[in-house]
Amino acid sequence: MSTSTHLRDTWNGCPYYRLMGMTVEHVDAASSTLRLTVTEDHLQAYGTAHGGAIAGLIDAAMGLAILGVTPPGEGCATIEMKLNFTGPARPGAVTATGRVLHLGRRIVTAAAEAHDGEGVLVAAGQGTFMRFVQEGDR
Amino acid sequence: MSTSTHLRDTWNGCPYYRLMGMTVEHVDAASSTLRLTVTEDHLQAYGTAHGGAIAGLIDAAMGLAILGVTPPGEGCATIEMKLNFTGPARPGAVTATGRVLHLGRRIVTAAAEAHDGEGVLVAAGQGTFMRFVQEGDR
Amino acid sequence: MSTSTHLRDTWNGCPYYRLMGMTVEHVDAASSTLRLTVTEDHLQAYGTAHGGAIAGLIDAAMGLAILGVTPPGEGCATIEMKLNFTGPARPGAVTATGRVLHLGRRIVTAAAEAHDGEGVLVAAGQGTFMRFVQEGDR
Amino acid sequence: MSTSTHLRDTWNGCPYYRLMGMTVEHVDAASSTLRLTVTEDHLQAYGTAHGGAIAGLIDAAMGLAILGVTPPGEGCATIEMKLNFTGPARPGAVTATGRVLHLGRRIVTAAAEAHDGEGVLVAAGQGTFMRFVQEGDR
Repeated sequence: MSTSTHLRDTWNGCPYYRLMGMTVEHVDAASSTLRLTVTEDHLQAYGTAHGGAIAGLIDAAMGLAILGVTPPGEGCATIEMKLNFTGPARPGAVTATGRVLHLGRRIVTAAAEAHDGEGVLVAAGQGTFMRFVQEGDR
Repeated sequence: MSTSTHLRDTWNGCPYYRLMGMTVEHVDAASSTLRLTVTEDHLQAYGTAHGGAIAGLIDAAMGLAILGVTPPGEGCATIEMKLNFTGPARPGAVTATGRVLHLGRRIVTAAAEAHDGEGVLVAAGQGTFMRFVQEGDR
Repeated sequence: MSTSTHLRDTWNGCPYYRLMGMTVEHVDAASSTLRLTVTEDHLQAYGTAHGGAIAGLIDAAMGLAILGVTPPGEGCATIEMKLNFTGPARPGAVTATGRVLHLGRRIVTAAAEAHDGEGVLVAAGQGTFMRFVQEGDR
Repeated sequence: MSTSTHLRDTWNGCPYYRLMGMTVEHVDAASSTLRLTVTEDHLQAYGTAHGGAIAGLIDAAMGLAILGVTPPGEGCATIEMKLNFTGPARPGAVTATGRVLHLGRRIVTAAAEAHDGEGVLVAAGQGTFMRFVQEGDR
């Protein structure tokens, strides 16, 4: 089973992804691709997706991009992230791509962008992650 | 009906808040208080709350703090936000407080902190918001 | 005189650029390129360039990238910025390239990366800017 | 010699601080206070202090706040920082105060605010730092 398939299965099965309707589409050493299907459930009081839904997607796209380049058995924890909301996300598919900007021995810097179904940028983020070895994989 | 009550009712009824189990507890001119009850549904593959759930709480705490100081009928949109995850959020209550750092004529800077049930800081954020007049309130 | 030349002359002549030894090398509609020659004067107590020197370079690279795509006579003010320091900047040339991620009617999101003379990434940033019409150019 | 005095002497003597006219005023376990005297040398083309000068001050205020709570002999490196520019900084004194939000075993989250001589907030930032043991102090 490829790393990409293993990562997809692991993450697509986790509770937050299922709650949000978010899926890992593809991961390789160059980038990650994730999809969030925005529905009525994600809306805030102004009628567009709440920032938290998009932030979760950007966070996940950066994290998966890192897992695509680090050794199997490693995990990564988000230390911090920053994201700009560049346009409203309305019901429909939002696709995010993540990539690693700098892979340090312990600290990784990554970036991600999210586009709506018409290719409009809805968010762009940059974050800092800490690599760790997972208990069960040591 | 007080501003705080109106804001609570408006936001607690919106879909994303219901999906996440997030509630506005209190809003006044000094600060906002929101609560997210982390459940199994919010967990990522490592067993703690996904960053997106916490990011949504921090975003909301900052936004509500702003609505607590701006005139009724105004809304605010998150332009960008940054947050540090300072500890894992496990199932249980996480409480966030937001406050306005600088209220500009159009741009507002706000900050928020989130603590778990034992008072441990789990996240701290700072963000930038744009004030706008809501259609229905003009 | 081309926009690029005009921008170069305006900014290379300003006090902060001269104080820091920072220059605009090139600006066009696709990106900006700036150079900071790190000297002994930029060092902090640990012997590498202070973060402020690199932050100024990243800020400038984003700002100039925006001025490369907005109409002549417009200015832009940094609302906020975030940058990761991915490696130490030692005495020698550091080159930054900036680009616009999203050009809004009033708000612009930009990004920049800075590399040392050996091509190693030393910093990456993302920021938010406000467009304005300059007094003298109205 | 107190920690505060030692830190003041070490940092006030470093090249970047002298280049910028920036000084550590006070450091204790609760907070740091630094001062930047903005002069004509710090101005960008619009006539106010360049963001880099203010970013350096905010970075330094956070770093010194951390050094005020960590053991003597430890250093800290800025992993990343984010700051909002909430008002123009004109020639005159700008005072920044930094404080630690979360002191981790290796990673520290800090915040800082900078005010001009009239008490107006000109910048607010939040950043992430890595603790390290300095060579000469092991």
